Amino acid sequence: MAQSELSNTLRLKRLGIDTLQEAVIYMRRDCHVCRSEGFSARARIRVNAGDGSIIATLNFIDSDLLAPGEASLSEPAWILLGAEEGGQVSVAHARSLDSLSSVRAKVYGEKFTDGALRNIVVDIVEGRYSDIHLSSFITACAARSLDDGEILGLTRAMISAGQRLDWGAAPIVDKHCVGGLPGNRTTPIIVAIVAASGLTMPKTSSRAITSPAGTADTMATLAPVDLDLRAMRRVVEKEGGCVVWGGAVDLSPADDTLIRVERALDIDSEGQLVASVLSKKAAAGSTHLVLDLPVGPTAKVRSKADAASLSAHLLTTARALGINTTALQSDGRQPVGRGIGPALEARDVLAVLQCEASAPQDLRDRAATLAGALLELSGGAAAGAGVAKAIAALDNGGAWDKFQAICEAQGGMRTPPISRHQRPIVSERAGRINAIDNRRLATAAKLAGAPDAKAAGLELHAALGQQVEISEPLFTLHAETPGELAYALDYIESHPPILEIELLQ
Amino acid sequence: MAQSELSNTLRLKRLGIDTLQEAVIYMRRDCHVCRSEGFSARARIRVNAGDGSIIATLNFIDSDLLAPGEASLSEPAWILLGAEEGGQVSVAHARSLDSLSSVRAKVYGEKFTDGALRNIVVDIVEGRYSDIHLSSFITACAARSLDDGEILGLTRAMISAGQRLDWGAAPIVDKHCVGGLPGNRTTPIIVAIVAASGLTMPKTSSRAITSPAGTADTMATLAPVDLDLRAMRRVVEKEGGCVVWGGAVDLSPADDTLIRVERALDIDSEGQLVASVLSKKAAAGSTHLVLDLPVGPTAKVRSKADAASLSAHLLTTARALGINTTALQSDGRQPVGRGIGPALEARDVLAVLQCEASAPQDLRDRAATLAGALLELSGGAAAGAGVAKAIAALDNGGAWDKFQAICEAQGGMRTPPISRHQRPIVSERAGRINAIDNRRLATAAKLAGAPDAKAAGLELHAALGQQVEISEPLFTLHAETPGELAYALDYIESHPPILEIELLQ
Repeated sequence: MAQSELSNTLRLKRLGIDTLQEAVIYMRRDCHVCRSEGFSARARIRVNAGDGSIIATLNFIDSDLLAPGEASLSEPAWILLGAEEGGQVSVAHARSLDSLSSVRAKVYGEKFTDGALRNIVVDIVEGRYSDIHLSSFITACAARSLDDGEILGLTRAMISAGQRLDWGAAPIVDKHCVGGLPGNRTTPIIVAIVAASGLTMPKTSSRAITSPAGTADTMATLAPVDLDLRAMRRVVEKEGGCVVWGGAVDLSPADDTLIRVERALDIDSEGQLVASVLSKKAAAGSTHLVLDLPVGPTAKVRSKADAASLSAHLLTTARALGINTTALQSDGRQPVGRGIGPALEARDVLAVLQCEASAPQDLRDRAATLAGALLELSGGAAAGAGVAKAIAALDNGGAWDKFQAICEAQGGMRTPPISRHQRPIVSERAGRINAIDNRRLATAAKLAGAPDAKAAGLELHAALGQQVEISEPLFTLHAETPGELAYALDYIESHPPILEIELLQ
Repeated sequence: MAQSELSNTLRLKRLGIDTLQEAVIYMRRDCHVCRSEGFSARARIRVNAGDGSIIATLNFIDSDLLAPGEASLSEPAWILLGAEEGGQVSVAHARSLDSLSSVRAKVYGEKFTDGALRNIVVDIVEGRYSDIHLSSFITACAARSLDDGEILGLTRAMISAGQRLDWGAAPIVDKHCVGGLPGNRTTPIIVAIVAASGLTMPKTSSRAITSPAGTADTMATLAPVDLDLRAMRRVVEKEGGCVVWGGAVDLSPADDTLIRVERALDIDSEGQLVASVLSKKAAAGSTHLVLDLPVGPTAKVRSKADAASLSAHLLTTARALGINTTALQSDGRQPVGRGIGPALEARDVLAVLQCEASAPQDLRDRAATLAGALLELSGGAAAGAGVAKAIAALDNGGAWDKFQAICEAQGGMRTPPISRHQRPIVSERAGRINAIDNRRLATAAKLAGAPDAKAAGLELHAALGQQVEISEPLFTLHAETPGELAYALDYIESHPPILEIELLQ
């Protein structure tokens, strides 16, 4: 540390400001350090405490929130630095990051080297990129598409920035759906089928970020999912499978940061998507992978051509990583199953596993198709015999037994809650349903409270091609509070119908 | 406003957090509105108060900074909304911005339409773009270069988003240096020369942002520069010229926002640069413009080819805007004059205007060249006779008289301050100076306190090609405090020499 930096110390006061991921340092504008260093608002500041060091963006405080000699950090910065109330920090101008030169070079048309991508990902994981830098990196990757070499380099960089799980010798199977479709909750069913068939499927899944439910949200209504790595291993060793929340396991930590910014921009570059999916699979130790690509006008992948291009990049990169992969396109024109929302989707999952007569056939078919592909890919079934074997595991109760055993091993099976407020939405005309807007259906379910309100969401009563009468219920809203129900109704009433109905001639 | 939004009201408490330009709303994580709306950290929130509405990024408060039912806004958001302590605001999810679709389309290779650029610039000026959006726009403009049509569209959009000055019929002359060179303070001299020659030059200039001195900082050590539009008009009507700070006049308000983000990225796209320069000139009512493009390895424009390309875009756009423009390349390999820092540069300016024998010849030559070009361009001198006329104005004292009159009209002439602490930096070897790093020289001057400490900076004693002996002073640091002097020395000692000296054979 330079001599002049030693005097730049301030005492930390915790203000409790949560900026999500952004590291912010709060300093009084009139503080001696700001004056002597010539700091300006939004300057990038290196903050040192003990052996640790982070980079944060400066916000000035013009009030008495901080006393002279005090500074504060946003919550993510506080945690990243391991700061303590009243602890000392020293501050200095942050040097510019070398890895940003590589981002600039990419903007102007050069290719990324593997080393450049490694440095960029490390800087992102260490919180050294501001939103401005993250956005430029993501935009550059979209405007100057990554080639297969760059995609592989980015994927490898993302893998090595986090933990990597090792499960020993057995084939480790996994399944991933690229671009969620509401209600498409095949994962718990597939895990039950393939684990019942003797394969190993240690599944980590995510909570919802913008959707009404993630697999982890749905599974949490059936069993505990917040298992650490040790507990997860115990479950997998005992039952051959699990469905836990991936957040407790630090796989591909750059990914969450990149996804947040991609979402704000509504930009999905193919290269980023491939790296995001495959880095997590490789880090989780997967050796055999089936990818589900739903294709439809309101799905993430809009056309068969887009799906083919994305599949090609996914398969090329997976091959280079040594992951045996199959990519399947599926129908993404409407939701899968009936429920949308954690508990409502869990009910669909239970109905399929219990072979109820009323179980949604589309969910059962998809789960069997994907499980069958996984069985064939990993040697669990002969070519062409996978789907039949998967259906047999459902029909003979093996999958249901296995699912209950997994839930017990994860901490005990639960019954999904039931919503307190329900309201059917009826058709305003007679006719045939010829389009369903997945995105607006998801928005309505979220406004009703999903995924935080576990029982909230909606239940579909109609499907594409079906004929409906005037006043026939199209779907039922489920909410935990009258306010959330009103909010969802408000949205539905002030927008065009979510289910488009063609008048019969 | 939807029914459900009426209940989403919160009471404002001013916390005094200055985020520079970013609009941030602070809300308790457990507040009823966050829960019922399902707001997540960093969500984009529409904030309504009375007739006004802004978009802000949400930060959660996990402490008692805010009481239940309270919210706060960052200072720029507070001012943008015209908020009042204890006032009511209602909040809702911000709808996604239509103009972002145009940015996304550009990322994927489409051209901007004039209408798209207008909408983008309006959204930027209204503070509706987060840093993530701004960075994506700037990166897209660099990765997918703007063509002349797009540059003109962006320039016009930036002009129409702000004030536009009208000076009546006379030719209004202006000069602009693209990419600052330390010490290149020709503007006050040029204004004095051309105003003495009967032309009208209402010059608005900027304060330093990353450099050790802007023209406004230097001029402020000689006369008041914080004039409003009325006062500025009075000076120009009386004396034919002025040198005032442009900040008080709202020309091209999108520009400051874009520049802040470009600086964080260290990305300069040609298109953005052209729009930035010419939108301000057009808004200032300029009809005749001379551009100075210093070219050198540590200048903004690195090669003659870059300068030629930039000139071509500048001239094409200026012509379309009806501004009569000449672009001149100049030597950007080393600083101009001797002083770097507000007062030290002012002393150089005074020495040239007063025709002192010790005046820096390079500064005098450049000012005469640019003033001469301006005289010829605007009919103030016959072709080929401009420089001689400019030199005559210096030599016959006309420019010096005019400069004093302008300073008096701006509020009274001042004497630049002298630093309290000085330290010569000497050569560690004998040889010839064969390179000078403009950027690191500027950094040393800033660490010594420039531009906030008016007398701080440095004074160069050596130039390219000059032979120096061991222990001969290369430059002298000037500072107001011992701490700042130490900080600059620290930087110089811990880096390779700023002046590169070639050993004599």
